[in-house]
Amino acid sequence: MSLIETFKMKLILGCLFTVFITAPATSVEDVVVLTVGSGESDAQTRLLRSAQVFQYTIQVLGDNQGPVADDLKLKLVQEAVAGVAKDHPDRLVLYLDGPDAILAAGPLRVVEEVTRDHEGPGGPVRVLLSADGVCWPDKSLAAKFPKLKVGRRFIDSGAFVGPAEHLHRIFTESAQGEKSLQELFTKLYLKDAVRKKYNIAIDHTNTLFQNLHGATGELELKFAGKEGYLQNTVYTTVPLVIRGNRNSKVMLNSYANYLARAWNPVDGCRECWENMLPIESLEASQFPVVTLAIFIPKPTPFLEEFFVKITAQKYPKERIHLYIHNMEEFHAPMVTEWVDSTGRLYKSLKYITHDAGAKEWHTKNKAIVHTLETGSDFLLVVDSMAHLDNPFAIKLLVEQNRKVVAPMLARPYKPWSNFWGALTSDGFYARSADYVEIVQNEKRGLWNVPFVGNAYMISSKLLADKQRVPSFINKLLEPDMAMCANLREKGVFIHVTNRLDMGHLVSADNFVTKHFRPEMWQLFENRWDWEARYLHENYSSSLVENATIAMPCPDVYWFPLFKERYAQDMIDVNENFGGWSDGSHYDKRLEGGYETVPTVDIHMNQIEYRYEWLEILRAYVQPLQLRVFEGYNNDVGPPQALMAFTVRYKPDEQPLLRPHHDTSTYTINVALNRPGIDFQGGGCRFVRYNCSVLDTRVGWVLMHPGRLTHLHEGLRVTEGTRYIVVTFVDP
Amino acid sequence: MSLIETFKMKLILGCLFTVFITAPATSVEDVVVLTVGSGESDAQTRLLRSAQVFQYTIQVLGDNQGPVADDLKLKLVQEAVAGVAKDHPDRLVLYLDGPDAILAAGPLRVVEEVTRDHEGPGGPVRVLLSADGVCWPDKSLAAKFPKLKVGRRFIDSGAFVGPAEHLHRIFTESAQGEKSLQELFTKLYLKDAVRKKYNIAIDHTNTLFQNLHGATGELELKFAGKEGYLQNTVYTTVPLVIRGNRNSKVMLNSYANYLARAWNPVDGCRECWENMLPIESLEASQFPVVTLAIFIPKPTPFLEEFFVKITAQKYPKERIHLYIHNMEEFHAPMVTEWVDSTGRLYKSLKYITHDAGAKEWHTKNKAIVHTLETGSDFLLVVDSMAHLDNPFAIKLLVEQNRKVVAPMLARPYKPWSNFWGALTSDGFYARSADYVEIVQNEKRGLWNVPFVGNAYMISSKLLADKQRVPSFINKLLEPDMAMCANLREKGVFIHVTNRLDMGHLVSADNFVTKHFRPEMWQLFENRWDWEARYLHENYSSSLVENATIAMPCPDVYWFPLFKERYAQDMIDVNENFGGWSDGSHYDKRLEGGYETVPTVDIHMNQIEYRYEWLEILRAYVQPLQLRVFEGYNNDVGPPQALMAFTVRYKPDEQPLLRPHHDTSTYTINVALNRPGIDFQGGGCRFVRYNCSVLDTRVGWVLMHPGRLTHLHEGLRVTEGTRYIVVTFVDP
Repeated sequence: MSLIETFKMKLILGCLFTVFITAPATSVEDVVVLTVGSGESDAQTRLLRSAQVFQYTIQVLGDNQGPVADDLKLKLVQEAVAGVAKDHPDRLVLYLDGPDAILAAGPLRVVEEVTRDHEGPGGPVRVLLSADGVCWPDKSLAAKFPKLKVGRRFIDSGAFVGPAEHLHRIFTESAQGEKSLQELFTKLYLKDAVRKKYNIAIDHTNTLFQNLHGATGELELKFAGKEGYLQNTVYTTVPLVIRGNRNSKVMLNSYANYLARAWNPVDGCRECWENMLPIESLEASQFPVVTLAIFIPKPTPFLEEFFVKITAQKYPKERIHLYIHNMEEFHAPMVTEWVDSTGRLYKSLKYITHDAGAKEWHTKNKAIVHTLETGSDFLLVVDSMAHLDNPFAIKLLVEQNRKVVAPMLARPYKPWSNFWGALTSDGFYARSADYVEIVQNEKRGLWNVPFVGNAYMISSKLLADKQRVPSFINKLLEPDMAMCANLREKGVFIHVTNRLDMGHLVSADNFVTKHFRPEMWQLFENRWDWEARYLHENYSSSLVENATIAMPCPDVYWFPLFKERYAQDMIDVNENFGGWSDGSHYDKRLEGGYETVPTVDIHMNQIEYRYEWLEILRAYVQPLQLRVFEGYNNDVGPPQALMAFTVRYKPDEQPLLRPHHDTSTYTINVALNRPGIDFQGGGCRFVRYNCSVLDTRVGWVLMHPGRLTHLHEGLRVTEGTRYIVVTFVDP
Repeated sequence: MSLIETFKMKLILGCLFTVFITAPATSVEDVVVLTVGSGESDAQTRLLRSAQVFQYTIQVLGDNQGPVADDLKLKLVQEAVAGVAKDHPDRLVLYLDGPDAILAAGPLRVVEEVTRDHEGPGGPVRVLLSADGVCWPDKSLAAKFPKLKVGRRFIDSGAFVGPAEHLHRIFTESAQGEKSLQELFTKLYLKDAVRKKYNIAIDHTNTLFQNLHGATGELELKFAGKEGYLQNTVYTTVPLVIRGNRNSKVMLNSYANYLARAWNPVDGCRECWENMLPIESLEASQFPVVTLAIFIPKPTPFLEEFFVKITAQKYPKERIHLYIHNMEEFHAPMVTEWVDSTGRLYKSLKYITHDAGAKEWHTKNKAIVHTLETGSDFLLVVDSMAHLDNPFAIKLLVEQNRKVVAPMLARPYKPWSNFWGALTSDGFYARSADYVEIVQNEKRGLWNVPFVGNAYMISSKLLADKQRVPSFINKLLEPDMAMCANLREKGVFIHVTNRLDMGHLVSADNFVTKHFRPEMWQLFENRWDWEARYLHENYSSSLVENATIAMPCPDVYWFPLFKERYAQDMIDVNENFGGWSDGSHYDKRLEGGYETVPTVDIHMNQIEYRYEWLEILRAYVQPLQLRVFEGYNNDVGPPQALMAFTVRYKPDEQPLLRPHHDTSTYTINVALNRPGIDFQGGGCRFVRYNCSVLDTRVGWVLMHPGRLTHLHEGLRVTEGTRYIVVTFVDP
């Protein structure tokens, strides 16, 4: 630790720092951790890991085959203490009764806290019990506990510490057939003489022991350099043992994501690298087998892209069993098309079509069976809203090799994701302190969370575990919530990873499938996907500092705005609608009813696209305008447009438009198809400058002043059909 | 006469033409015109002139000392006819009883009409009497006149024609002491036997004689090449003798302006050149003396220019006696200033000031006395509305040398002039057929009219004529109307000349003297004078085909609009008003009350100049705009402008204006004073083009798009004060 870091430590750690310099020279052998085994569990694994991180000696007592009765527990502890006292009488014994606990610092802290002077009547304390806010099991005794100014008065014998020989004396001299540690210590503590004789104290202010239940408000997660710790802000102490007692397991999971060197702001996620599956070394043909279960529960925009990304996954298709359940008739053609074209490339395929009328609960449960039947190593569930943008997503999840791990997916620009950081008391969504940081990737790593959905990988080890295999049914909860509730009940940790970008969530909340090319309307609900499909690749290049912007004629600017896909979809939507005006002067769509310079056109509001188009003007066109027409931003707010329409030029219909001005501050003109290919002739001529733009580019927008300087004409289309979108901005 | 002209004649003249080829070979000696002299009069002079024009032999009977009684008239005619018959029995006698007649063609017409076969019962007619629509003096005889399908049935013996010897026989054989020619011919005509015996007929259809009274609707003035003639459109005849019988004298005057080769469309005014005063040959010191009488009866705009033009008259001032009557206190300072500075250059000066309280009737009458007392040859009356733009006006009027002649003056662009072409029956304004052509100078010449005003020259010969000298008083008529009524009563011809441009009339109808620099408000009432004073000399050069128009920056145009005089007057008006805004954002003059880019200014409506300014936009700015911004003309009509104001930039007040756009389609910016002289710095910079206009020119207007492309700033004024007028056109 460098000098500077030392100094930081001093500032940050306060009392904790003083330890390192005032602690008596003791070795780590001076502390032994005892805990009663209740069977292998994720929690126990985590406890042992934390002991290992800080190099504690730890003994798991009993046969570790499941829950242990209190009296037997007492007996096991007495034996273990006797054993320690016999060989190392001065050794400190730190007892933790269950696995829902984690060690947050090393043995020196324990030594320091126990040997330091306490205000206890009997001088230096030799035995320190963890404190509880309630008196149990016998509430009637509460009155007998001494009153306190601060701190918790009562005993939780689930955690305590003391010298082995000293504890041994207590057990042998004072134990009179008590049925539990709790009963024993309560009795001793309430006898003044005994308490003083043995110097027994309660850790009222969490100097060593922090029981999380009911303590939420007191705690703050902090870092000293790479060292994470929990600060009790009420007692300004830094507890070393963090216990998820009673209903505080989810909170413990959350803190445990950082403590015991699982994560730090310098290295990020340390724990991620533990227990990985090293598949880099394997042949593709040796890769673990994955059952990829795709579910399409409702009409979902951008499903086309969804499948493109599935297809693009860099994971050997011959190591993937496909399992697809489409519940929507609307999507049937596309899904079937994909299944037919791409499905066969996979190791196997099971396709449940919408007309099967199957329910998601059941097909997800069947997916588990399918995974085991196909001998897959992993089940990867992916809903249609979950886009795996990262082509290595599957590979990364397999490598991460957890029982349950979800790729972190969120709706772009929104705090909505596919995991929860915390739970309400009744088991629903609650926001954890670090939720937003994780969703926004300000913290990256592997996170133990109470819920994941939409996309997650489950290890077959878990699926094969009769005790713990999750079901997708739990009361009337929707499948993913049911699964997670079941996992939590069985103490199985659920992980979400944002160590790397995995993809994002599409919203299917407002998908109006009555529209032709309905994704064009998804600008508001799924802007990210809309832009990916429709916004020109180089759109933003016009906005960078000192961008060179094309000016084909004086004060006429030319920007890439839309992809060709948008232009084609716009043509399709209009031709599908078909209600072209007749190009006469009398236009019932207008207030006045009279159009001076009529065209054969369809207005945006006729295709119910008015608000989307105004949003395009606001979000994409105005920024361009501000770059070229400095200083103009319509004071009354975003761009206004009463006249926004698609124009059709045809030799046998309306081939051209005579020179005219527009009732606009500026006009935009988007080319929808290709001169010289889709049509001959065409283009726009600016009469006063005798300057024409002939080689119009699909999806590019021409922007020019409307009213005064830029008298312009639509040049004659001699062959084919020319389509443009014209908008009079700020009339 | 060329062949082609001959051919024209045939087409145009019809029967008249046939004369020349079918008439027996007779000489002009075959016709003698007899008329009874009633004293020298303008009418008689005109009749004799017309006889001379067509080389008639004419005898004036009696002593020509005034009216002659009917019986004496009869006696004089009988004697004269006897005289003619004695020497030349076959000679035709053409009798015209009064001077209010004119001969419109030559003797051959007479011979032809009399010798041609007529449908009269007695074969070829020998005596033809002019016809009348009423029977007089004895109405009771009407029934005895033969009924007719067409034409006038009765006799007007004021004009007739017949062979001398034949007429002599009638008088000697049939006269039985009748008291008048009318009585005699009526008696003879009504006796069938007698009528047949002497072959007496009435010219029912005006083949020869046209009495104008009651015939207005029938007549049309026409020209055959240079030959003017009167066409009777009812009988398709071309009468040769035109008589102003009864109340038709004014009409005769009007026709006489053209007939007898007085005027034709090829040479124009022939008569103008007759009786001119040849002063070109004279030394300036020998020029006729003129009394120039100037009257200022009411507040009159552009009086400054009025005097400038008087001063500029190219007539020796030492041959002019000045006589000035100003009736308006408002004008006193200017008139006095002119009198003091210029008055002394004249031969003499009489100045009647407004406080004398004299009436125009009397001072105009006194001007006549003054003219005679000073021994002037002419009196030239000029009212303050009468601008003699032609510096030779006085000289030309003197040269024209008529008893009464007025320079034709009209209000520019209006049919309002200083003369009348006709009279109503009660002696007020009526419009003659040629009025508009004369006012618009489509016909130029010297015109005999019933009324002139505002400016006219009267010969001292007339003023000295006790019988005919006009008075400016007649009942309650205003002076000029009174004078003309009096002249008409005395048979004095009144002339107006537009042979050359003489000047124009200013309207004093809506002159609001409460304004500071009130002529600035005269745009509507006196556009011509307003333009002369205020519109830039080269304004229209911007409007000519292919004009090169200055464009100091892209799409920024620069036009000469106002003279410096306008710019200075606008500054004066604003500084005199003084209500400059404080340049803060809160502007109670605006609807919203908030001004984003405030200036220290005064709005046009604050100085009550709103409508005038809008008219300037419509009449002068819009045409410029249409030249440079082709195709834009605000559909809703003339240019609109809510924001039109004069801005003041001063170092210690508001020295500059930050870059901004205007709420306008285009903005105009008129420089009111001089950079480098009146102020240092200043100018307008167009940010997007990094282009500045610094050397602004007084009265020139900068025109640029307002809203989008031409972000602009007012550059810092470092010294002095800069004034500009800014207008946001079509917001």
